[in-house]
Amino acid sequence: MADSSESIHELYDLAVVGCGPAGLAAALNGTIRKKKIILFGTDFCSPKLHHAPKIENYLGLPNITGEELRKKFLAHLQEVKLKVNQNKISGIYPEGENFTLQSRDKFFKARAVILATGVNTVKPIQRELDYLGRGVSYCATCDGPLYKDRKVIVLAYNRDGLEEANFLSEIASEVLLVPLLKEEEAARVRLNEKIKVVKGKAMGITGEMWATGVALEDQQLTADGVFIVRESVLPDQLVPGLKVGSQGIEVDRWGATNIPGVFAAGDCTGAPYQLSKATGEGQVAALSAAKYLDELKSKVKEDRPLATV
Amino acid sequence: MADSSESIHELYDLAVVGCGPAGLAAALNGTIRKKKIILFGTDFCSPKLHHAPKIENYLGLPNITGEELRKKFLAHLQEVKLKVNQNKISGIYPEGENFTLQSRDKFFKARAVILATGVNTVKPIQRELDYLGRGVSYCATCDGPLYKDRKVIVLAYNRDGLEEANFLSEIASEVLLVPLLKEEEAARVRLNEKIKVVKGKAMGITGEMWATGVALEDQQLTADGVFIVRESVLPDQLVPGLKVGSQGIEVDRWGATNIPGVFAAGDCTGAPYQLSKATGEGQVAALSAAKYLDELKSKVKEDRPLATV
Ligand SMILES: Cc1cc2nc3c(=O)[nH]c(=O)nc-3n(C[C@H](O)[C@H](O)[C@H](O)COP(=O)(O)OP(=O)(O)OC[C@H]3O[C@@H](n4cnc5c(N)ncnc54)[C@H](O)[C@@H]3O)c2cc1C
Ligand SMILES: Cc1cc2nc3c(=O)[nH]c(=O)nc-3n(C[C@H](O)[C@H](O)[C@H](O)COP(=O)(O)OP(=O)(O)OC[C@H]3O[C@@H](n4cnc5c(N)ncnc54)[C@H](O)[C@@H]3O)c2cc1C
Repeated sequence: MADSSESIHELYDLAVVGCGPAGLAAALNGTIRKKKIILFGTDFCSPKLHHAPKIENYLGLPNITGEELRKKFLAHLQEVKLKVNQNKISGIYPEGENFTLQSRDKFFKARAVILATGVNTVKPIQRELDYLGRGVSYCATCDGPLYKDRKVIVLAYNRDGLEEANFLSEIASEVLLVPLLKEEEAARVRLNEKIKVVKGKAMGITGEMWATGVALEDQQLTADGVFIVRESVLPDQLVPGLKVGSQGIEVDRWGATNIPGVFAAGDCTGAPYQLSKATGEGQVAALSAAKYLDELKSKVKEDRPLATV
Repeated sequence: MADSSESIHELYDLAVVGCGPAGLAAALNGTIRKKKIILFGTDFCSPKLHHAPKIENYLGLPNITGEELRKKFLAHLQEVKLKVNQNKISGIYPEGENFTLQSRDKFFKARAVILATGVNTVKPIQRELDYLGRGVSYCATCDGPLYKDRKVIVLAYNRDGLEEANFLSEIASEVLLVPLLKEEEAARVRLNEKIKVVKGKAMGITGEMWATGVALEDQQLTADGVFIVRESVLPDQLVPGLKVGSQGIEVDRWGATNIPGVFAAGDCTGAPYQLSKATGEGQVAALSAAKYLDELKSKVKEDRPLATV
């Protein structure tokens, strides 16, 4: 993990998490406002937009396919020399006046964050949420060390999950891996020999005070802890303390969430799940974040003379 | 006014007032949702967009001038066979469950309304607001008949004002016209001979309980009523009872105003005054209006059996 120690030193003004229309619009507007931006995405930016067969309601570009629009959006980002940093963010934590963003094997720092992670279609499995912080974890980097020389189960809904299992196999005494992704996808990752693969459908978490296993359809697995790795992270798991309503992340008209310095835009803030709504909210969130950063700066300036007294 | 009797009979689902980015996006999305739309604009759609020298932050169309984008937006409307109805709306009034929209010489009816009138840069003259409904009016069609055989002053900030003066000269005993627009613009309207033109800068309204005149820089005009005709109408004058804050028309995250059936989008709802924010809000307002209309319809259906009991 040579990278983690490198990247932690660089402090960005604004981290944008998600590279769909909302995240791209946020990053674009933040850059125009001269903020130092880091934009995070998974390997493929906006599968949703890619799958839209025909888009008729993005004003100015009539009769276009989702894929054509996706390419135009990404080309626009290249015009302003913005790149997508392909790291799935699994946790965002305040640290003084900044935020630390954590991916599988790297850390990043920013003064402000915009969440543009898209609509959340994750349905947790039974009792998953009951055991959060008590044996159920979404982040091997964060919680792996707790399971040194102990036994863990990894529920892997995507390739990242297989990588996490490899990582955990270097710490834990035993790793049971339940692959829940397509076989051809899984075949692309070479698994550490120590890992024991168990096939089956994960039904729920089992345990008393602490999670001690996973119920599959036809068998019961036991362990000291369970790691669940999916494509999307529940927003309030991504940012502990974030206020999420039935519609999605709660924001005001300026895209501000309940956590100062954290903004949100696009499908993740609720219906209507639409493109222009997403780009519009991305723009508003970026300008709100820029304002927040400017105020932070003048606050720091004000504080400084006092500190030297 | 042959037209007014014709148009009053047609009931639209949705009237969109304003043909800038917000209004165009609203009309486009409303049409896609199969609503019967009427879209109002002044002769030139979005002078603001026309004047934007270079736009870098409308995602998907990098490095474009405001005028190029304006043309693309209008071309998109043509694709879906939507036309701009060139009528400046001067008043919107509830009438049962519908709304009546009034232009200089026509009336229109719609079940729901989206306001997308752009940012309001009007500064009322001194004491103007004190005399609203007490001798000061923005609408000759509505209030003209009250001044039959009486004397009125018209403050005309645009060509419409000159037309209004002509209209009033057929009702009032005397019309004093203060032209406050460019001379070359004014030259394009032929004034009725009965009108007396007075040149000068309008400083404020004068009167006691009721407006009885206008103070110019160097003289005092007296009359029984004062008509003020400007390019933009204050939103709460356009829709009586509309809640307007220091930022603009007050809306929630779904574009709803305090009046059921009236929605708003774009610069008129407040900062940031930006394009994607405007199109995004136009989209959201249209979808909210569509939902409102669908609910209205099912309500009417529910009411019907009761009514026949
Ligand atoms: C079939 C289909 C047709 C559609 N047609 C239309 C249409 O005609 N008109 C219209 O207006 N809308 C349409 N939509 C909706 C539109 O695609 C969405 O509203 C839009 O993509 C939302 O943008 P977003 O940026 O909020 O989220 P998304 O587009 O979902 O993008 C979110 C991105 O963030 C990434 N991400 C998520 N979490 C993380 C993390 N923790 N770390 C890093 N990256 C992360 C995801 O991988 C994804 O790439 C359609 C959608 C579908 C599926
Ligand atoms: C010089 C300049 C540069 C800009 N550059 C950028 C930029 O780079 N990026 C960006 O995002 N934004 C930019 N903007 C801002 C952008 O142009 C506005 O945010 C956008 O035009 C707002 O759209 P709107 O539809 O809300 O209002 P408007 O564009 O103002 O449109 C309102 C329309 O409604 C009509 N109207 C008003 N009242 C009535 C009525 N009663 N009846 C009928 N019609 C009516 C008006 O005539 C007008 O055509 C710029 C603006 C200017 C002036």
